[in-house]
Amino acid sequence: MKGNVIVGQSGGPTAVINSSLAGVIKASRNAGIEKIYGMHHGIEGFLKEDLIDLGEYFPNESDLSLLKRTPSAFLGSCRYKLPEIEGHEDVYEKIFDILERHNIQYFLYNGGNDSMDTIKMLSDYASMHDKPQTFMGIPKTIDNDLPLTDHCPGYGSAAKYIATSMKEIIRDNESFGASKPTVCIVEIMGRHAGWLTAAAALSKDVDCSGPDLIYLPEVVFDVDDFIEKVKDLSAKKSSVVIAVSEGVKVADGRFVCELGQSNDFVDAFGHKQLSGCASYLANKVTEATGLKSRPIEFSTLQRCATHLASRTDIDEAYNVGYIAAKSAFEGKTGMMVTIEVVSRDPYLVHYNQYDIHEIANVERKVPKHWIINNGTYVGKQYLEYARPLIIGSLLPYYASGLPKHVTLNNKPR
Amino acid sequence: MKGNVIVGQSGGPTAVINSSLAGVIKASRNAGIEKIYGMHHGIEGFLKEDLIDLGEYFPNESDLSLLKRTPSAFLGSCRYKLPEIEGHEDVYEKIFDILERHNIQYFLYNGGNDSMDTIKMLSDYASMHDKPQTFMGIPKTIDNDLPLTDHCPGYGSAAKYIATSMKEIIRDNESFGASKPTVCIVEIMGRHAGWLTAAAALSKDVDCSGPDLIYLPEVVFDVDDFIEKVKDLSAKKSSVVIAVSEGVKVADGRFVCELGQSNDFVDAFGHKQLSGCASYLANKVTEATGLKSRPIEFSTLQRCATHLASRTDIDEAYNVGYIAAKSAFEGKTGMMVTIEVVSRDPYLVHYNQYDIHEIANVERKVPKHWIINNGTYVGKQYLEYARPLIIGSLLPYYASGLPKHVTLNNKPR
Repeated sequence: MKGNVIVGQSGGPTAVINSSLAGVIKASRNAGIEKIYGMHHGIEGFLKEDLIDLGEYFPNESDLSLLKRTPSAFLGSCRYKLPEIEGHEDVYEKIFDILERHNIQYFLYNGGNDSMDTIKMLSDYASMHDKPQTFMGIPKTIDNDLPLTDHCPGYGSAAKYIATSMKEIIRDNESFGASKPTVCIVEIMGRHAGWLTAAAALSKDVDCSGPDLIYLPEVVFDVDDFIEKVKDLSAKKSSVVIAVSEGVKVADGRFVCELGQSNDFVDAFGHKQLSGCASYLANKVTEATGLKSRPIEFSTLQRCATHLASRTDIDEAYNVGYIAAKSAFEGKTGMMVTIEVVSRDPYLVHYNQYDIHEIANVERKVPKHWIINNGTYVGKQYLEYARPLIIGSLLPYYASGLPKHVTLNNKPR
Repeated sequence: MKGNVIVGQSGGPTAVINSSLAGVIKASRNAGIEKIYGMHHGIEGFLKEDLIDLGEYFPNESDLSLLKRTPSAFLGSCRYKLPEIEGHEDVYEKIFDILERHNIQYFLYNGGNDSMDTIKMLSDYASMHDKPQTFMGIPKTIDNDLPLTDHCPGYGSAAKYIATSMKEIIRDNESFGASKPTVCIVEIMGRHAGWLTAAAALSKDVDCSGPDLIYLPEVVFDVDDFIEKVKDLSAKKSSVVIAVSEGVKVADGRFVCELGQSNDFVDAFGHKQLSGCASYLANKVTEATGLKSRPIEFSTLQRCATHLASRTDIDEAYNVGYIAAKSAFEGKTGMMVTIEVVSRDPYLVHYNQYDIHEIANVERKVPKHWIINNGTYVGKQYLEYARPLIIGSLLPYYASGLPKHVTLNNKPR
């Protein structure tokens, strides 16, 4: 090959983001690439020329099996958006200067909607200035809200974690309630799209009643109606468990978590930091009913619980990484790899690529007609969609009773 | 044998409480007991004569393997304390009347400090009134605060969950921090004893830096000193992760979680409901430093994550159940089974029994000299104590990608 490769990880980590990294490394090795660079903390680190020589960490193929079992971004992540090209040519000149000095021909970036913007900007700049480098996006987001791909690597493992934990929480909640019903409100990530919260429905089976209500951000939330529904449920059942997205909003557009507190934090992409929706609602339930009501937030556990990752997800994350690299080597640029599901049962997929302009900054939500029971549950279409994505396990390597990981500070010898 | 057996589960569930139930069932079958009854929701359900015929659920031995893999109290639990005998003889007469009508000779109760009070009261009453029934306690509590036993079934699995999740959270937190440090405060259960919070220290290994600070309820908490320590750490490191017990108190005796809010909930045993300590401290950190600070509460997940249970813990829970039943059959009464560790490396245990009067309502805390760094970490003694308890896994039975459970509503055919 005519140059080196660089790969970066961006945005919120997932349980399987390192499987995509493993796919990139394997494809690069198979293609005979000399140097495989990683960006330390994504494009933010790249701009400081903070590069990692991945060949040093993974001198041979067998090391990749531990990388696949390691949660969170091995290379470090960032939330950093490149500025508009016009007026900021210096930033882009710097980037291409770094690429050229390290003879980097292939640029791969693993992330969600916001991160795909980086691929768009760089491939646009390259095309405007006849630069030879190729730029390919590797999808990743537990939020599952990238367009054009059937689903996103990272989602299946988050869904498996959520559904497993819901089963365990429902079992726990059902153990009490002999004299008085107990209410549990589980807050699940997803600012604008309810994919993660919908995964709570997967817990329903012959051995689990599933959550009683599921509230997605796609539907306007009504606090009074919610309280009435909890009252009705607790009159009939001794255990009431509710799944609610962190992103649910009331009719005037405010997030539920903003109703009880001042909350002005925003992250580096300008998104409001959300949390406390379950706490707010649990307090409301206790006020209104006198019942014990427990809020639970999965928080970052839902994106980093690699010990419970879906094998399907791990394999697909590996494949999109591999294919993005291979496509970049073949000269493709300004695209993201997508997953197309040929058949859900038996589950068969193939991979495609789409123009990054159709993907960057676009959010895909749960289809309205998949949301049932007046906006309080998800239907069969969702279950058929999601069930194959959580199948299979990749058992951790245990040492002293705990899953082993590989980290930048723990170079294999 | 000359009568039937009954077993109840009480207090907060654990990941392995059903393994003790499996041990009781197996011992009863081996002893030729005709009827194996369960109390539906512990002594509270027993008083309503709400009994479950376990022979119907587990007609043969093979079914117990799924019971061992099922979190939370299969029989339902309760938080219910029997009244003093004097002045409440009617309650005790009712209990012994129910026992006699069902020809129940052996009474087994699986729980923690508060629940062992039930065994104490009933065996005292039996002794006062020359009743023939035997009453044996089976230890269980994630809090690990029962006296006389080296450790409590349920603790090892909770510790394994906490240490695994800490590793995953630390990996997640380390993925950011390229420009600004990120702080994460993890709140762990344990009202008065720091055993669970100490388990966060198990995460430290060649592949994990471990939490930066660990605060147990055994040590008075100083909010200002805590903020200073976080400032110092965040000046040196890009990722700061702190483990804190829900039960930490400031010098005037108030819980930290009470500092920012009114919180008057008490549970049925009269304990204050605690939560929100991490939220309070995370807000304080952000106010003082401007840094992003994320609170995480493991909440009930730390006691019901059977998918990640310790095999050592599962086996010991089974054994204490088996031995309690066998001892009851042999005429022992008014005692609890304890675990004695003969050797920690290699790990060897044997089982003993102690007078329930030495156990009920007594709490065992983490020894002061195991707490180091001015009350902000735990030492080698703790690590040597806890490491064997988290070893080994019992893999879930998966169906459709999720762990299978057995429940009262899901009778095997």
